Amino acid sequence: MILNRLRLIRRAASAPGCSLCISLSKQLYCSSARRTRVRDALSSLETGSSIRIQGWVRSVRSQKNNLFLHVSDGSSLQPLQVVASSDLNTRELTFGCAVDIIGSLEKSPSKKQSVELQASHVKVIGECNPVDFPFKIKERHSLEYIRQYPHLRCRTNAFSSLLRIRSEATSAIHSYFRDNGFVQIHTPIITSNDCEGAGELFQVEPAGNEHSSDKENPHFFSVPSYLTVSGQLHLEVMAGAFPAVYTFGPTFRAENSQSRRHLAEFYMVEAEISFTESLEDLLKLMEDLLKTSTEHLLSHCAEDVELFHKYVSPGHREKVDLILKRKFNVISYTEAIDILKRSSQQFIYKPEWGCDLQTEHEKFLVKHCGDVPVFVTDYPYDLKPFYARDNQDQPQHTAAAVDLLVPIVGELCGGSLREERPELLKTRLAGAGLEETYAWYLQLREFGSVPHGGFGMGFERYLQCVLGVDNIKDTIPFARSSRSCLL
Amino acid sequence: MILNRLRLIRRAASAPGCSLCISLSKQLYCSSARRTRVRDALSSLETGSSIRIQGWVRSVRSQKNNLFLHVSDGSSLQPLQVVASSDLNTRELTFGCAVDIIGSLEKSPSKKQSVELQASHVKVIGECNPVDFPFKIKERHSLEYIRQYPHLRCRTNAFSSLLRIRSEATSAIHSYFRDNGFVQIHTPIITSNDCEGAGELFQVEPAGNEHSSDKENPHFFSVPSYLTVSGQLHLEVMAGAFPAVYTFGPTFRAENSQSRRHLAEFYMVEAEISFTESLEDLLKLMEDLLKTSTEHLLSHCAEDVELFHKYVSPGHREKVDLILKRKFNVISYTEAIDILKRSSQQFIYKPEWGCDLQTEHEKFLVKHCGDVPVFVTDYPYDLKPFYARDNQDQPQHTAAAVDLLVPIVGELCGGSLREERPELLKTRLAGAGLEETYAWYLQLREFGSVPHGGFGMGFERYLQCVLGVDNIKDTIPFARSSRSCLL
Repeated sequence: MILNRLRLIRRAASAPGCSLCISLSKQLYCSSARRTRVRDALSSLETGSSIRIQGWVRSVRSQKNNLFLHVSDGSSLQPLQVVASSDLNTRELTFGCAVDIIGSLEKSPSKKQSVELQASHVKVIGECNPVDFPFKIKERHSLEYIRQYPHLRCRTNAFSSLLRIRSEATSAIHSYFRDNGFVQIHTPIITSNDCEGAGELFQVEPAGNEHSSDKENPHFFSVPSYLTVSGQLHLEVMAGAFPAVYTFGPTFRAENSQSRRHLAEFYMVEAEISFTESLEDLLKLMEDLLKTSTEHLLSHCAEDVELFHKYVSPGHREKVDLILKRKFNVISYTEAIDILKRSSQQFIYKPEWGCDLQTEHEKFLVKHCGDVPVFVTDYPYDLKPFYARDNQDQPQHTAAAVDLLVPIVGELCGGSLREERPELLKTRLAGAGLEETYAWYLQLREFGSVPHGGFGMGFERYLQCVLGVDNIKDTIPFARSSRSCLL
Repeated sequence: MILNRLRLIRRAASAPGCSLCISLSKQLYCSSARRTRVRDALSSLETGSSIRIQGWVRSVRSQKNNLFLHVSDGSSLQPLQVVASSDLNTRELTFGCAVDIIGSLEKSPSKKQSVELQASHVKVIGECNPVDFPFKIKERHSLEYIRQYPHLRCRTNAFSSLLRIRSEATSAIHSYFRDNGFVQIHTPIITSNDCEGAGELFQVEPAGNEHSSDKENPHFFSVPSYLTVSGQLHLEVMAGAFPAVYTFGPTFRAENSQSRRHLAEFYMVEAEISFTESLEDLLKLMEDLLKTSTEHLLSHCAEDVELFHKYVSPGHREKVDLILKRKFNVISYTEAIDILKRSSQQFIYKPEWGCDLQTEHEKFLVKHCGDVPVFVTDYPYDLKPFYARDNQDQPQHTAAAVDLLVPIVGELCGGSLREERPELLKTRLAGAGLEETYAWYLQLREFGSVPHGGFGMGFERYLQCVLGVDNIKDTIPFARSSRSCLL
């Protein structure tokens, strides 16, 4: 019965403009044509089965008798080849239009694909004027060019690959932590902490609050409130009740920078582990996270990642292989400064013990280590915030802090053991005039304090590092930076 | 050799204040005592093995010869019972202190637990003054009481259970979408859209920006920018390139409300599916998501969920079972108004066709449906925003929108088909004076537009619904609401 109906549809379809086409979508729910995603069709072994595909046209090629289409629905980079009678061609069938197609999935005679769809019906459900559409058929647009169209760039191959990769990487990171017994904590976005210096903070108030009727306390939250720059302090709260916690969400910096390295809104993966007394535990965790996630990504998104390694960053794949295969290097900050000082390279910033490493230094150190990631440990105490654990190694005086440097981006992760000793923390907070502000933080150390530590990893930098993408704006669905907040 | 050393440690331990205890943690790395989480110890079958446990003391009971401790490390609600010689008792061994213990895991003679740790070493690594600590041994503190201590409440049983449940629910939701081929999109937090009326928006500028030197354009992003109230419009961008997308992240409302139902910062799960022409597809997705996630939660967090159903919301478990077992009801908005009008209940807001349903109405409808969730479909066109799809059913005139109402909370999800027809959308935007603001949104319909739809679910409300928690502030790690932004 169903088969008969399908044959009927097919026969009717050979006459262009048939009445059946008009109510095609309703008909199809009654027919045996199974709605199928392109990804599943491509790997299907059920040739001869009747399927329905919905997607967007990536290419149109018309021959004397046959019409060839490539149709993608976003489920995979590779499109499905559709072959139809050239009678089914219409003016609306253009690059970028949306189509609804039924036909029979058959073994393809070409070596380029294993299957193709022999279409009985092709219906354009959303037109796309090729003159106005900013992307052109068969053109490879640069990442810079497509960045101008934040609402349309997901329709290009490169950016839809990026989005699938980003989604898969997110999932890989969550899985890693879950598999290792971490509890995920949604650390707050709005916070009354301003620990990293007010200059780079976004402040939050209701729109129109300048006209607040309450002149004595104009703040919505009673106190000035900001967008978070890190979930660390909130994770440390949780380190007093769980063996291991993490957060993975947006963080913010109001940095007046148009650089390829900075976003005003970016994602951070942050983890905190309790009962750890050694930086080594953190190093192991970072290295394992990085390797496990990257392996997952290369195996689950092979086609999409290959697009980047082939067209965006030729030669980069070798660096990724080094990340996977080699044990990461570990050097102390003091050794790093020695290496920089001994080198013949001319730096803009002269390397000097007691000064922060600059991006040029970080990149040099990675090169120096043969493009293998390198941990730099034990930074000068005075360079690090109040929470970093004092190594008490005077006269040198360092803190148990670590950065992980990688190819392309330089600093990818930063972490430290946290000062869990109440007296030492109290003294340091008092010295910085922060005793009152962080009274709650000090209390964490007064009730069942445990040695703990953690780190943060910039997620977009991670994607840059794996894909070899030069500009961080090309790794996030909607980029926000100084002077730019499109959509 | 290793065994010998352990015996040595054990023997030495019997003398209180032994020198070994001082450097205990270093020693242990050399010994055979495996660092073990409480959760793993509880389910371990390897009795007789030497393990090391680190956690917090939940109870201390001293008998003549023996000391009994309950130790929790946050990996499970159930603590591990530790039995030690009373010689190992010290003044510092109090409720809330952090301990590091080695011993032998043995079959427990008691029926309360299958295993217990017979300790050879007990070391207090973080003291906890019971007088100052706000939580007291053996007391069951109310959720209201512990809410006063946002930095410490994770140390209570109830809130650590909540956090494990929240983490597991997050994971269940991600898995659901991943298993169904959805691409996760990190929709932006900062946006220049202000579609839902400026009254409830938070605005964002760098701290200290009132002194901006650029008087002509004082905005960091050149345009006024806000915290997102929904990722929907950004997901709709992606609906033009993927078959199914979702986002799961924080959203914001600057609502001046202290109610048990509202937060200024809360999490939303939002999904958008392409090539859908029927509300039914959305209903099916919502029902499936809700049932699948809840089943996962009940099976993976049984003990933690039981704590809530036993102590926080007795009798609530039956409602959850109804959610799982029964097919959800579907009624139209028009039917809903009829039901409300026919009822004998006195409502504060009189039900009237064309007016929004109030929480009292929503709760009545759920009760009316026997505490089984109910979808209300096809709301008056004029009640819904510009993006809702016109049903073109004048004179009644409705839009293809739906809300899902559930016990305890009322509205849990809201969704709609989106207006994909460019002419209809253009007319509606023009009517609202939004044609220019949403020119980009209109363009989505001009280049390969497809019928699509989606919904949003309040994540905290979901947790309330499953756990029976009355106040939404008890479902999020750090609650933000008008006049309150602690930490």
